[in-house]
Amino acid sequence: MRRDELTALLEKVRRGAVAPRVAARAIADAPLESLGFATLDHQRALRVGFPEVVFGQGKTSEQLTAIVARLFEKNGVVLATRVEPEVLADLRRAFPAAEFHERARALVLRRRRARAAGRVLVVCAGTSDLPVAEEALVTARAMGSRAELIADVGVAGLHRLLAHGRRLREARVVVVVAGLEGALPSVVGGLVDRPVIAVPTSVGYGAHFRGLAPLLAMLNSCAAGVTVVNVDNGFGAGYAAHLINTSGSRR
Amino acid sequence: MRRDELTALLEKVRRGAVAPRVAARAIADAPLESLGFATLDHQRALRVGFPEVVFGQGKTSEQLTAIVARLFEKNGVVLATRVEPEVLADLRRAFPAAEFHERARALVLRRRRARAAGRVLVVCAGTSDLPVAEEALVTARAMGSRAELIADVGVAGLHRLLAHGRRLREARVVVVVAGLEGALPSVVGGLVDRPVIAVPTSVGYGAHFRGLAPLLAMLNSCAAGVTVVNVDNGFGAGYAAHLINTSGSRR
Amino acid sequence: MRRDELTALLEKVRRGAVAPRVAARAIADAPLESLGFATLDHQRALRVGFPEVVFGQGKTSEQLTAIVARLFEKNGVVLATRVEPEVLADLRRAFPAAEFHERARALVLRRRRARAAGRVLVVCAGTSDLPVAEEALVTARAMGSRAELIADVGVAGLHRLLAHGRRLREARVVVVVAGLEGALPSVVGGLVDRPVIAVPTSVGYGAHFRGLAPLLAMLNSCAAGVTVVNVDNGFGAGYAAHLINTSGSRR
Amino acid sequence: MRRDELTALLEKVRRGAVAPRVAARAIADAPLESLGFATLDHQRALRVGFPEVVFGQGKTSEQLTAIVARLFEKNGVVLATRVEPEVLADLRRAFPAAEFHERARALVLRRRRARAAGRVLVVCAGTSDLPVAEEALVTARAMGSRAELIADVGVAGLHRLLAHGRRLREARVVVVVAGLEGALPSVVGGLVDRPVIAVPTSVGYGAHFRGLAPLLAMLNSCAAGVTVVNVDNGFGAGYAAHLINTSGSRR
Amino acid sequence: MRRDELTALLEKVRRGAVAPRVAARAIADAPLESLGFATLDHQRALRVGFPEVVFGQGKTSEQLTAIVARLFEKNGVVLATRVEPEVLADLRRAFPAAEFHERARALVLRRRRARAAGRVLVVCAGTSDLPVAEEALVTARAMGSRAELIADVGVAGLHRLLAHGRRLREARVVVVVAGLEGALPSVVGGLVDRPVIAVPTSVGYGAHFRGLAPLLAMLNSCAAGVTVVNVDNGFGAGYAAHLINTSGSRR
Amino acid sequence: MRRDELTALLEKVRRGAVAPRVAARAIADAPLESLGFATLDHQRALRVGFPEVVFGQGKTSEQLTAIVARLFEKNGVVLATRVEPEVLADLRRAFPAAEFHERARALVLRRRRARAAGRVLVVCAGTSDLPVAEEALVTARAMGSRAELIADVGVAGLHRLLAHGRRLREARVVVVVAGLEGALPSVVGGLVDRPVIAVPTSVGYGAHFRGLAPLLAMLNSCAAGVTVVNVDNGFGAGYAAHLINTSGSRR
Amino acid sequence: MRRDELTALLEKVRRGAVAPRVAARAIADAPLESLGFATLDHQRALRVGFPEVVFGQGKTSEQLTAIVARLFEKNGVVLATRVEPEVLADLRRAFPAAEFHERARALVLRRRRARAAGRVLVVCAGTSDLPVAEEALVTARAMGSRAELIADVGVAGLHRLLAHGRRLREARVVVVVAGLEGALPSVVGGLVDRPVIAVPTSVGYGAHFRGLAPLLAMLNSCAAGVTVVNVDNGFGAGYAAHLINTSGSRR
Amino acid sequence: MRRDELTALLEKVRRGAVAPRVAARAIADAPLESLGFATLDHQRALRVGFPEVVFGQGKTSEQLTAIVARLFEKNGVVLATRVEPEVLADLRRAFPAAEFHERARALVLRRRRARAAGRVLVVCAGTSDLPVAEEALVTARAMGSRAELIADVGVAGLHRLLAHGRRLREARVVVVVAGLEGALPSVVGGLVDRPVIAVPTSVGYGAHFRGLAPLLAMLNSCAAGVTVVNVDNGFGAGYAAHLINTSGSRR
Repeated sequence: MRRDELTALLEKVRRGAVAPRVAARAIADAPLESLGFATLDHQRALRVGFPEVVFGQGKTSEQLTAIVARLFEKNGVVLATRVEPEVLADLRRAFPAAEFHERARALVLRRRRARAAGRVLVVCAGTSDLPVAEEALVTARAMGSRAELIADVGVAGLHRLLAHGRRLREARVVVVVAGLEGALPSVVGGLVDRPVIAVPTSVGYGAHFRGLAPLLAMLNSCAAGVTVVNVDNGFGAGYAAHLINTSGSRR
Repeated sequence: MRRDELTALLEKVRRGAVAPRVAARAIADAPLESLGFATLDHQRALRVGFPEVVFGQGKTSEQLTAIVARLFEKNGVVLATRVEPEVLADLRRAFPAAEFHERARALVLRRRRARAAGRVLVVCAGTSDLPVAEEALVTARAMGSRAELIADVGVAGLHRLLAHGRRLREARVVVVVAGLEGALPSVVGGLVDRPVIAVPTSVGYGAHFRGLAPLLAMLNSCAAGVTVVNVDNGFGAGYAAHLINTSGSRR
Repeated sequence: MRRDELTALLEKVRRGAVAPRVAARAIADAPLESLGFATLDHQRALRVGFPEVVFGQGKTSEQLTAIVARLFEKNGVVLATRVEPEVLADLRRAFPAAEFHERARALVLRRRRARAAGRVLVVCAGTSDLPVAEEALVTARAMGSRAELIADVGVAGLHRLLAHGRRLREARVVVVVAGLEGALPSVVGGLVDRPVIAVPTSVGYGAHFRGLAPLLAMLNSCAAGVTVVNVDNGFGAGYAAHLINTSGSRR
Repeated sequence: MRRDELTALLEKVRRGAVAPRVAARAIADAPLESLGFATLDHQRALRVGFPEVVFGQGKTSEQLTAIVARLFEKNGVVLATRVEPEVLADLRRAFPAAEFHERARALVLRRRRARAAGRVLVVCAGTSDLPVAEEALVTARAMGSRAELIADVGVAGLHRLLAHGRRLREARVVVVVAGLEGALPSVVGGLVDRPVIAVPTSVGYGAHFRGLAPLLAMLNSCAAGVTVVNVDNGFGAGYAAHLINTSGSRR
Repeated sequence: MRRDELTALLEKVRRGAVAPRVAARAIADAPLESLGFATLDHQRALRVGFPEVVFGQGKTSEQLTAIVARLFEKNGVVLATRVEPEVLADLRRAFPAAEFHERARALVLRRRRARAAGRVLVVCAGTSDLPVAEEALVTARAMGSRAELIADVGVAGLHRLLAHGRRLREARVVVVVAGLEGALPSVVGGLVDRPVIAVPTSVGYGAHFRGLAPLLAMLNSCAAGVTVVNVDNGFGAGYAAHLINTSGSRR
Repeated sequence: MRRDELTALLEKVRRGAVAPRVAARAIADAPLESLGFATLDHQRALRVGFPEVVFGQGKTSEQLTAIVARLFEKNGVVLATRVEPEVLADLRRAFPAAEFHERARALVLRRRRARAAGRVLVVCAGTSDLPVAEEALVTARAMGSRAELIADVGVAGLHRLLAHGRRLREARVVVVVAGLEGALPSVVGGLVDRPVIAVPTSVGYGAHFRGLAPLLAMLNSCAAGVTVVNVDNGFGAGYAAHLINTSGSRR
Repeated sequence: MRRDELTALLEKVRRGAVAPRVAARAIADAPLESLGFATLDHQRALRVGFPEVVFGQGKTSEQLTAIVARLFEKNGVVLATRVEPEVLADLRRAFPAAEFHERARALVLRRRRARAAGRVLVVCAGTSDLPVAEEALVTARAMGSRAELIADVGVAGLHRLLAHGRRLREARVVVVVAGLEGALPSVVGGLVDRPVIAVPTSVGYGAHFRGLAPLLAMLNSCAAGVTVVNVDNGFGAGYAAHLINTSGSRR
Repeated sequence: MRRDELTALLEKVRRGAVAPRVAARAIADAPLESLGFATLDHQRALRVGFPEVVFGQGKTSEQLTAIVARLFEKNGVVLATRVEPEVLADLRRAFPAAEFHERARALVLRRRRARAAGRVLVVCAGTSDLPVAEEALVTARAMGSRAELIADVGVAGLHRLLAHGRRLREARVVVVVAGLEGALPSVVGGLVDRPVIAVPTSVGYGAHFRGLAPLLAMLNSCAAGVTVVNVDNGFGAGYAAHLINTSGSRR
């Protein structure tokens, strides 16, 4: 039952064409969610300034072109992640105005530049972790956060991290991306008093078990304030970081 | 918004005291589920003839006594599972009219005997698996199914199972309970053309990993028609078996 | 010992050519199963209306063509699952009258349309889960069940599921297919009073461990009445659903 | 090298008593962190308004009494978690002015009431998950957040959760605590546009593996914006929730 | 259908009271296994010289006393394993003539001494592995094998093992019991040309995972001819060793 | 120190050219094993009638050709396993007199036919398990055992297995190969009184975990006398079966 | 064959009483290891200055008293680890001259003080890790290493660790003990150019899996030069550290 | 703040241009690590005689050529590991003077030959483990250790290992590389009194789980003095071996 149908029903009630008791049952029996949830869903897009994000994996160039075009027309902004390289090349031809992030396998298309708010800091342990870190970066920026990257500051060379003390302290939320033993979020969590989102990556071999090692490490971090997302889930971390970054400024 | 509140609102619409557009928004913004879901929930109890089942684990005698009394008063029938032995003894004093199933750690209290329908057969590999098998049996019976038990028919002595061919073929659904290697459901599944619900038990040691071995075995059964529940979950198997057993005869 | 051999032996007993005691030992020592089990197996095909299902994985076009032809001749109906795409193309040429389900990788060939009975509902969380859902759907239909699909109703957008309340309540058994966190069976199980068969899929990455995450979730479902099959086992779910769907109407 | 020592050294440089080159080496060789990190650490306590949290597990009444007394004297506020019941009883005698949270096994002692800011909402699937939920609640409140609890809103009875739509939408961050299949964070994450912190609990049995099942489920949540903490880590969730809740309002 | 029933039926056939075709169907429809399997089962006891072994775990003194008495009366020999210490004490009073093996938690009661055949050698890595080794030893002996033990010959002190070269070479089958890293079966397997049965034990800690480490090691042994049983399964190893030891000498 | 070197040294002792004390030290310090173990190793080849088996995986055609030629020249018999198909084709050209087992990926080259002794029976659950079963078969035969195969007798159709009762009872050792749930060894173990070697295969999907499911099942078999080898290790099973088969007849 | 027996045999060779060929065979057939390995074993005790270490777990006071007394008499030094508290109390009465380390559950008894050599540094993340750290410390010291402890320097407060830069750089080998996420070895490994032995502890909960999390983290350390021992294996780390510490100074 | 900047600041203090208190704050606020850690890092390269090692995996020929050239120019020595075969071919053209280790996938380029010190012994169980063993060998040699290899001395043929007793005893540290069951380190650890570094390899199949089996075995070694590195981590073992080998001789 769409809202116009509901209003029409209520008009009938007002005119006496339908008895209140009969209308009450009709409303109660209607698919409940069609009253409000679509609205709520719509409100979500308005508030966050962001529609559904496109998960590119397994989709063809044709499918993605169509989806991106439709979402762009409707919302004025589109984020697509995990787009295969060859598909990315096709999209580049279809949407020359879009930003393309090759390493992050992501595309952002927008009508007007977002007014970047707050400050998300993405910190990355090794160069191999960069694709995941950039996915987080691109996601947070696409949603409207000001976001920056500090790369290659693994714990075996602490001075590289410590050199960025000021930037660490100025962030409103820090995303920490690390493979291997996944120790970086604990070290960062001990240096800042902001929420830290830890992202384990599948970078490693042997007893790494494709990300299990850093995932467990991060879940057991001795630093309070660290929360964790799935292995290689840069998108999820960037999304949550944006929500945190803007949580205080939204009503 | 309860249904009487909704009716009251609609009365105001009819009287012209509230404009249809305003009422439409109020309805859309109301907690949607309070219109219908409570009703739906109530219908569920009516249809299945069974209210919420009490999970006894971790509850005191006082708590359980109160809960059982209240549910009995409201529904006329109560099933409590995983009741600790000493608590069961206390309940026995409080509800002398109830059935007590010590090995299954369960209690059934009902106003009038259920009319047993269909036929659920519970088959059990070893004597150590009996508590789980009986939990399934008691659950199916408490909900209104006719249910029987065949015990101690492990696969290392096939003739014990084969001797029950007729009973196997007469069941409408078979619950098969097994620990160790969990092979029995495959053998039973090959003998009958009815749904088989497999229940792995934690009976075993070493590379059994508290039920993981038979759980994996049952999930990989070469016999089609076998579905699986959690380790030691006799209750869940009995519940599903009752739903299956009566699925055809309910509207 | 085939039944004609047994009859011949008994003729000799009747003629006095063999002493009863000698015949008794001969019967007891014979491979027991050759008396009855083949028959039982045959009865199975008659009752279920369905012969052995062909598991296509790893079979060549020639092998499958031969098997399908022979089974069709004998039984008038064939279901083949997990057929590789290129093999499916070959089979299409060999059996132009068959139904082909590309996404489900299945083929159904039948002499006459089955009279669809009961109602199996297959519910599917994401579009990536569709191949598994369709395998369940095709299986249930091939065996003779009326079966329908509701697609793309993941738990992160509940209103999409709730919009199908009526169809959920009209099913006799519901198959719920989900990857990622596998939460959908719990939600569906809370809405219906029918058996729910949960199918975890391998759709996911990282700590998903190729289906382990939703498999464990489904085994621990807080909704009673949920049973589980192996990861990506749409065939097994459809098969069990058909057995449940028709369990009440068969003798 | 404390800052007064550094100043003294610099005085000597100014007086010409020490050559700049010599002083430079002395400073470079000094334990670097004693210059600034202690300060930073001190700033941390000032900013967050909160000193080190006491992990009570394995500590005796005497130890805890001493630690709590010292921290209270220095900071005016103390939070102790995972305090064993009998130790809690002893602490109650020692600190009659403190708040005691039995189920959460926590103690809070403060000089003056914190001015509660923002809004943390803790949502809890089952009654067995309450101790973990309350640990999150107590932690967030002790640190200065306004925090509320919605209990017993498991996914198998969605209407119970949907009834709290308004409170869900008013929170700045939502902590979702769930055992069994851990599906609740996905459902909540689909209803709100705020950060969701998921806490798996060890409530379950069999293939639950003491919290592994909901942990994996939450890491694979189909709802964006969900981050995860360790099994039963209510403290960690409450701590992160406070940081998020106040992240926007701190400079 | 018992054999006397079958004979009676055949008598009727001979007398012409029952037609052969009718009798054939009756036999085919009878529970098949009751004709032959009990016999086969009986032959098994005769051949192996051993009835069902009693698994003592979880059984009371009363239960075990009754079972042992009955089996002894029927078969003249009884083996009970995994008997709890206090129960063992009770049995000692009831069966003063039995052998009691405290460390192996086993009891053997026999009418006349078995004529020990062949040679089973049980080799054991550490003193903590002795209970499992002795369970294997007692089992093999109870069944009628000549069996010997070499204890405490771990791989970190190879000379202890090498000193027993002659005994190793004289065995017909070797049972090797080891905890920790489970390396001993590989070393023994390289020294002998006889079947080696490897028994991992739960002796270890940390990354031992209660026997998983030696279990995996043994399954991956670089020495051909090594087969493996479950963790701590001394009984199973002794049983298989006896079968192997006597396999050549039985018909 | 080779034996001729030792003899030479002793000659010097006899001639008085070397003092006994000096010779004693030289002997004690020599690599001990070169005295006797090489001999022992040689004896092993003589007794078992079989030299080192060639593990073909990862070896080139050139390497394998050279190894096979050398071993054949020295021992008159060669077994090579896990030979890649294309390499097998090359070997076929190099050794036209050899037996080639394509499905088992094995080659046997021998000067004269082995006199087959005893009886090894290989039983196989499904057609997909055949390559592993044939590897066991080929290995046992190459080493000198009489060996036979019963294929496709899975537990979901027990009658197929039961029809082979006589062959099962005539074997001296039974190798049982099964994937999926791995239930077959338990059923066979309950029918025979001979050693059973269980071989799990990687045939399955999802919660099969590439053979973990049947491996755990077999380790937890309720039938005594069952021992287990690694997943897909047909070679190891055939090797152990040969040792068992001939254990009684060798001195 | 003891060395005196060998010399006697060689005397006979020299006298012509035994032919060289006969003697050669006798030597080759003798249990080889009795010539040299016992000697080697004896040399080991002399070199390391340390006999077999006593593993106290599961041993009674009487057993331990006897073992310690005998080893002390023979070697003048004894180390016993994992001694239960009550047993430790008994040993204290029996050996008043011994050192007792309660937290490390260890006892050291020596005739004269070892001359401490080199420098082993044990670093420990949290106070709960102290028992394991002290076991390493006591072991290294008992064997003759100079060894020191730095406690409570977890990675979430880096300044505590950095304050000890000089001591870190002066060590010849560093043992790093950590539970939770096990990040400390990576940080230490990045600060020193000495071998680092990492010891994961079982301190943690939930997804810690009793030490699995830090074990995996340490095995995947991004700092080169880090090797790992079993969970809670302070003894093994201290033992290896002593070997490393003195490896250069021994011949 | 570089050291020249610090000296310049101190000059200003000396001239009175900056007050000591102001300078003290500037120093405290500066990125602390830039004072000393870079220096320390530089010292590290000088002491170990070795700069950062290049991890070749995933790097292109162009990238590696550039990195190797730059590091060689700066340090006079470069080690690159895990270089893909085709990249290695390109590097061969670019650096004809370098050593290339194909099996170890490593490259070493140095200005002058290192003076080999101490003695590292690398022992390897099977020929398939050679690539990992050689990576350890090349790494230790590149860093300046004298290093040797003993190959193919698996535990199933102990005499092959025992023949190398002298070389084992002359090593200062032993690296033991083994796949399958990983038993070799325990055997070696029992023969020598030097540190043993165990390297599990991924050589195996089935229940080997890509190296998990030998990894667990090595962590549970019954020989004291054994430490472990990640699966296939020959580089890490060689690096640690060099540190141990030279630990005594460095100051």
